[in-house]
Amino acid sequence: MTKSAPHVTPVPTQWVGPIEITGDVVNEAVSVPLATYETPLWPSTARGARVSRQSGGIRCTVVDERMTRSIALRARTAADAHAAWVSIEARREELDAVVQTTSRFARLVGLNRQIVGNLLYVRFECATGDASGHNMVTKAADALQGWILQNYPSLDYATISGNFCTDKKTSAVNGLLGRGKYVVAEIDIPRKICTRMLRTTPEKMVQLNTEKNLIGGVVAGSLRSANAHFANMLLGFYLATGQDAANIIEGSQGIVHCEARENGLYFSCTLPNLIVGSVGNGKSNDAVEDHLQQIGCREDRAPGENARRLAVLCAATVLCGELSLMAAQTNPGELMRAHLLMER
Amino acid sequence: MTKSAPHVTPVPTQWVGPIEITGDVVNEAVSVPLATYETPLWPSTARGARVSRQSGGIRCTVVDERMTRSIALRARTAADAHAAWVSIEARREELDAVVQTTSRFARLVGLNRQIVGNLLYVRFECATGDASGHNMVTKAADALQGWILQNYPSLDYATISGNFCTDKKTSAVNGLLGRGKYVVAEIDIPRKICTRMLRTTPEKMVQLNTEKNLIGGVVAGSLRSANAHFANMLLGFYLATGQDAANIIEGSQGIVHCEARENGLYFSCTLPNLIVGSVGNGKSNDAVEDHLQQIGCREDRAPGENARRLAVLCAATVLCGELSLMAAQTNPGELMRAHLLMER
Amino acid sequence: MTKSAPHVTPVPTQWVGPIEITGDVVNEAVSVPLATYETPLWPSTARGARVSRQSGGIRCTVVDERMTRSIALRARTAADAHAAWVSIEARREELDAVVQTTSRFARLVGLNRQIVGNLLYVRFECATGDASGHNMVTKAADALQGWILQNYPSLDYATISGNFCTDKKTSAVNGLLGRGKYVVAEIDIPRKICTRMLRTTPEKMVQLNTEKNLIGGVVAGSLRSANAHFANMLLGFYLATGQDAANIIEGSQGIVHCEARENGLYFSCTLPNLIVGSVGNGKSNDAVEDHLQQIGCREDRAPGENARRLAVLCAATVLCGELSLMAAQTNPGELMRAHLLMER
Amino acid sequence: MTKSAPHVTPVPTQWVGPIEITGDVVNEAVSVPLATYETPLWPSTARGARVSRQSGGIRCTVVDERMTRSIALRARTAADAHAAWVSIEARREELDAVVQTTSRFARLVGLNRQIVGNLLYVRFECATGDASGHNMVTKAADALQGWILQNYPSLDYATISGNFCTDKKTSAVNGLLGRGKYVVAEIDIPRKICTRMLRTTPEKMVQLNTEKNLIGGVVAGSLRSANAHFANMLLGFYLATGQDAANIIEGSQGIVHCEARENGLYFSCTLPNLIVGSVGNGKSNDAVEDHLQQIGCREDRAPGENARRLAVLCAATVLCGELSLMAAQTNPGELMRAHLLMER
Repeated sequence: MTKSAPHVTPVPTQWVGPIEITGDVVNEAVSVPLATYETPLWPSTARGARVSRQSGGIRCTVVDERMTRSIALRARTAADAHAAWVSIEARREELDAVVQTTSRFARLVGLNRQIVGNLLYVRFECATGDASGHNMVTKAADALQGWILQNYPSLDYATISGNFCTDKKTSAVNGLLGRGKYVVAEIDIPRKICTRMLRTTPEKMVQLNTEKNLIGGVVAGSLRSANAHFANMLLGFYLATGQDAANIIEGSQGIVHCEARENGLYFSCTLPNLIVGSVGNGKSNDAVEDHLQQIGCREDRAPGENARRLAVLCAATVLCGELSLMAAQTNPGELMRAHLLMER
Repeated sequence: MTKSAPHVTPVPTQWVGPIEITGDVVNEAVSVPLATYETPLWPSTARGARVSRQSGGIRCTVVDERMTRSIALRARTAADAHAAWVSIEARREELDAVVQTTSRFARLVGLNRQIVGNLLYVRFECATGDASGHNMVTKAADALQGWILQNYPSLDYATISGNFCTDKKTSAVNGLLGRGKYVVAEIDIPRKICTRMLRTTPEKMVQLNTEKNLIGGVVAGSLRSANAHFANMLLGFYLATGQDAANIIEGSQGIVHCEARENGLYFSCTLPNLIVGSVGNGKSNDAVEDHLQQIGCREDRAPGENARRLAVLCAATVLCGELSLMAAQTNPGELMRAHLLMER
Repeated sequence: MTKSAPHVTPVPTQWVGPIEITGDVVNEAVSVPLATYETPLWPSTARGARVSRQSGGIRCTVVDERMTRSIALRARTAADAHAAWVSIEARREELDAVVQTTSRFARLVGLNRQIVGNLLYVRFECATGDASGHNMVTKAADALQGWILQNYPSLDYATISGNFCTDKKTSAVNGLLGRGKYVVAEIDIPRKICTRMLRTTPEKMVQLNTEKNLIGGVVAGSLRSANAHFANMLLGFYLATGQDAANIIEGSQGIVHCEARENGLYFSCTLPNLIVGSVGNGKSNDAVEDHLQQIGCREDRAPGENARRLAVLCAATVLCGELSLMAAQTNPGELMRAHLLMER
Repeated sequence: MTKSAPHVTPVPTQWVGPIEITGDVVNEAVSVPLATYETPLWPSTARGARVSRQSGGIRCTVVDERMTRSIALRARTAADAHAAWVSIEARREELDAVVQTTSRFARLVGLNRQIVGNLLYVRFECATGDASGHNMVTKAADALQGWILQNYPSLDYATISGNFCTDKKTSAVNGLLGRGKYVVAEIDIPRKICTRMLRTTPEKMVQLNTEKNLIGGVVAGSLRSANAHFANMLLGFYLATGQDAANIIEGSQGIVHCEARENGLYFSCTLPNLIVGSVGNGKSNDAVEDHLQQIGCREDRAPGENARRLAVLCAATVLCGELSLMAAQTNPGELMRAHLLMER
């Protein structure tokens, strides 16, 4: 193979499931593809999927969705920056009109700012249909920035992307202001399923979540993150479905919350920043296309519905893998007995 | 294709380079493979590689290396937890002996603790030869935990992985205490190369770095992170070389620092948490094996040398892509003129 | 003195200034009281005040103001939590009416939520007149929570304060969603004033800000914070004016930005979270009352104006102290030559 | 009162207690002074003190102590910075000798570094006897920096304080590498004391801690912080005992952990960064001197013992106030019924 030839890196892939899912967006049992070099991920996630089928399914709720890009502008003074912002904010309809010239699907759904000395950071939030929307918001932001620079001569160009967006970097902004799909996946697991299929109890799971994900996260200096290994499932799902997998970074900033209830274990995974799309870069790949079709995300639906379905499938998959690894960690030595197979 | 069949997801891959590299570990021009769905990454990184060849090369310095796993233990009281820690810490040679029973390569190089109420988190730091070391440190931690539970009856098992490690999650701990290879890549770019090849100036680059990566990062609530898109290059490199690509999460927490110097631009990328290995999971893949051989990371060298070479190549690749995107962002509209090709 | 007797702890206090201030809110030279055990703070801040009088004054811009409290509610499921939120958000006028029953001054200006599994955190943002508003928003939140629990039987009480507020704790939420007054103070210092009064140059100040406040902050794992010692001036000002000084915690999370311009140094301090009031707890103290009167914050003005004036004076004071310490740190040994007087 | 006159700001102060304390450092019942404008703090903390006397006392464990200052140095390249660091680290005895020339009490107990491009940040950790040590470590750092600049001509002065210290600013570094006293305070409260004196149950306290301090903290984007209002008690105690009260910022970054145990509630407050001293600035104040004497922190003891006693008293006080407010928050409306008296 010559070094200049374009070629492929084949990432081992397996179907896991079916995962039983309920809720407004998806109400069926669906198998999902996971592409990963860490092959123990498959049996681990599959165990979670089996639990989903024995426990009435994983309920998935889409709480929010938007995609963002922030520009930065430079004024002479903070007073100028603030005055410009006040005016810009008041012209939101004009801004939305600019956005709509750049795409059939994009529309402005939110606007935020930070002012630091003479610098003005404006964060545009857009609806982007079935696309994850990276390019769509950049195109929109570019047009908006041009419009602003023309209308506000007190402002200069600083950058088309001011890191207040923020893309593929750890931050608090995406969780607090929103970026991507915000999905909660949750399940009620009968006590005997806990014992039989997960070899654990609701009480042990709650204790582990507190001691490991919550307090362990605090001492590690984590930021808006309390989970065991969301990232592993996200990576496998993102690669198999043609996503921009570097977005697992903000995706990984999610939270496990569980309760020991009268009948068993309540277990939830909250994923505020799933950046996924059913169209766009990475989708013109036969394997990816096949995966998307098989999971039903290339259907003829209203704009946005395929992408929401994708986000829900992703969240349910994360729950399956998280549940299984956590259960294993409640028992000393279980991970090692499984030949180091499942520890991340 | 039936849903149960194992198969592959082919990720488009191209060679980029050669990248001119200098320093203690690598002193040559090397091309590197990048596997990604975001194909504009290739020409962008290639531009950085061209600059490296016109500017005397990218100097790479390996500052540190270690791999970690933290266990959590539960005492009745903080006093008990602290007493146990004081004793454990004093028996480091015994701990190291336990570690060495678990692997030919692993040895204990550091030890840290956090005490929260009655909970004791112990973070083991190991040298792991040419492996990234996830499994090696888990195996070591499992043995150490068994030894501790046996020797300290005041302690109970809480978890084999207490998130004070921390793996594939945003945190401050990995940057401050170390996890993976800590590499700095830096380059001195003559002013005319800046102008001609990057269409920018040292002064514009310094200003952009301050306004976007540093201040933009602060307002976004970033954590130990000040860069434009390290994650993109990391993902491409990790996938092509069979790494556990979910570790781009801590990998993305790096810093760009640049200075306008008398002769041009000093530009550096600091990557404190490159978790890479030349052996281990994901390497038994023909394409990956071929990539690793072609970049010279499967040679017969002293343990650890192939992995350090890999880390250096990775850091240099990150610098190439970061330099190119940042240069593009110093000019209004350049990203859009490139048809949205390079914006992340 | 018997241990049970109420008494006072006298904190040494001095007037510093006058500080020359310009902008929409304050346009005059005002001296300010600083109460502190760290007496070198006075001459250091006074040097900054002298610079303000030689440089056309410190321009202060109030960008935003609001006070917040977040309640937490517990549902059975995320679906229930989300459904309740969607309904609550749509009844904002009713919520505002509830708020207005609790105080003459309070009114609802914003609303945010986070959903984690079955938990719903609602953050209420209120205008609070001249008060810092801790109690006012708690009272409002208590009434709102009662109203919500009555109207949404699917929700249970979790807590009146869910730490999503957040009061007196490090976080990103206050900077991103707003809490307290958001003020930018900035100054243009002629080059010769830099040299003569601050013994430094614009270029040295910019370099120090980058290397210490920005990059030093990143490596320390700071969160939305890039300054040298905002906290010292905040504490002195807060104590002298009867504020709840524990709010220096969020107050300290501010940013210095400076530029070397053609005519000298542009220097700014951005303070997104100044939690101050001219009425309320701590004001019924003769010394405090005297201080507030002397700085003109007990005048008969429209509600909110005295508090905004207070915030502006505070921000200008922070700039004076920050400027002076930073200038000293540009020169090796200067701090020590001043007998350790000014180092924080 | 003329504006130039030095005077005092009297902060209302009351004794609270006695607090029953056990452990290696303090084994007695001690009342403590709290100086604050937020007078509801007194009865609230007093309730906690009463609980301490009915529950066998608050056990306090000092886990660590050190004070830090970081210098920043500038090299031409990262390679130079790293080479210098490797050499400096190997000469630790010489560094300690330099430290010991600057003070009778200071000695070097630790050393850390961060390298960012060509910048080298070195963090010195010192033992500082009974002083909190701000000035002692600055003096030591100044001498060390002079010695380094003389011995390493490849390094230039950047700053005497590189924010990797870090003083009075939010960060992760102080918790992870240590700064100040690290103290854990914990108590076992019989179930009937919970019911009778705190009007709550162990189960309700555990649930509140999870939902408010832990999860609420995560959603707020907190950093190494999971508590309700440590800052209030810290401020009151610091002011009354002459501490540099701006250090409540890192002090506030602590963690509540509690468990419902067979016999009642296990409740703990972990305070990794108590920066307190029994000598130094602020202590030459009659009221402060009187307070310190009455709490037994001006005795003739081995160096460091008075300061450790002070830290333990502070931690126990924090626990009393935290316990009381949290208990109140487990019951809807209790805070309001107490006329907003205790909400922070």
